[in-house]
Amino acid sequence: MELVLSEITAVLSRTPGTLRALLEELPAPWVEADEGEGTFSPRDVLGHLIHGEKTDWVPRVKLILEAGDSRPFVPFDRFGFRDAIRGVSTSALLAELQSLRACNLAYLDGLSLTRSQLALAGRHPELGPVTLGQLLATWAVHDLNHIGQVVRVMSRRYTTAVGPWKAYLGILNR
Amino acid sequence: MELVLSEITAVLSRTPGTLRALLEELPAPWVEADEGEGTFSPRDVLGHLIHGEKTDWVPRVKLILEAGDSRPFVPFDRFGFRDAIRGVSTSALLAELQSLRACNLAYLDGLSLTRSQLALAGRHPELGPVTLGQLLATWAVHDLNHIGQVVRVMSRRYTTAVGPWKAYLGILNR
Repeated sequence: MELVLSEITAVLSRTPGTLRALLEELPAPWVEADEGEGTFSPRDVLGHLIHGEKTDWVPRVKLILEAGDSRPFVPFDRFGFRDAIRGVSTSALLAELQSLRACNLAYLDGLSLTRSQLALAGRHPELGPVTLGQLLATWAVHDLNHIGQVVRVMSRRYTTAVGPWKAYLGILNR
Repeated sequence: MELVLSEITAVLSRTPGTLRALLEELPAPWVEADEGEGTFSPRDVLGHLIHGEKTDWVPRVKLILEAGDSRPFVPFDRFGFRDAIRGVSTSALLAELQSLRACNLAYLDGLSLTRSQLALAGRHPELGPVTLGQLLATWAVHDLNHIGQVVRVMSRRYTTAVGPWKAYLGILNR
């Protein structure tokens, strides 16, 4: 399957609005729920996505365009957001994600990447050789992965509350 | 954990907007993707949720309030939506879901259910004894389950496109 850049940006542009529709003004027990020590609550997911907008995706795009695979990406700190979200309202986090994403998509749009550029090589510090196209596809799937995580974490609050219906709800049985 | 009705409706009321933010005007390859024969595409999920609003959740609430567990629920046809969505735009499906959900939440709100009513018994045709509270909790988790399905189905289109990053994306490894 050939990668279509407009399909990727169609997903990337929808993530902030999707999370806003789901999480804005949602009662605290939902947005603060997690799956135990070291796991993400919906609020943590917002922090993590914001941190990625600032330090991960676009810097890696730039590195590939500037240096190809001659230098590895800077490792991404999955928990680097912890201090930054403390005391910040969920609404403010949603607004920040939306603003950063819009800015990053404007940058991406301005690059007018060609098909041959999508094949440019980069180097992941752990995974090794990757391409610019794979990086952009991953950006989109990473969003979807975390939306999936948010609804899973929320669902688990009700593992007992749903009673025998648990058997029918795949999200509670993974 | 005691069930809080306003927490359930907070989730139920957000689902149509969440799916709209994610799916409205999204390119067809995303909304029509599925996981093979007998599985749901994002469009199918909309059809299934609409069908549930019409034939499943509220009729079951009514049956419990009227007849308790003396009569089992009418079995729900998970694929009963197939004919109804053919040729209908995704945008129209999103609007229909929003409208039906608003209507059903208005009905629920009008019931002013008490804590003791949430303990009322009903009878599921396969699962046996359930309560009204379990039915309502399941309605919300069922929404979240299908949002999770939508993002998983979308993600899988890019299983190959993400290259070696697949190893880091839980949504592609279930």
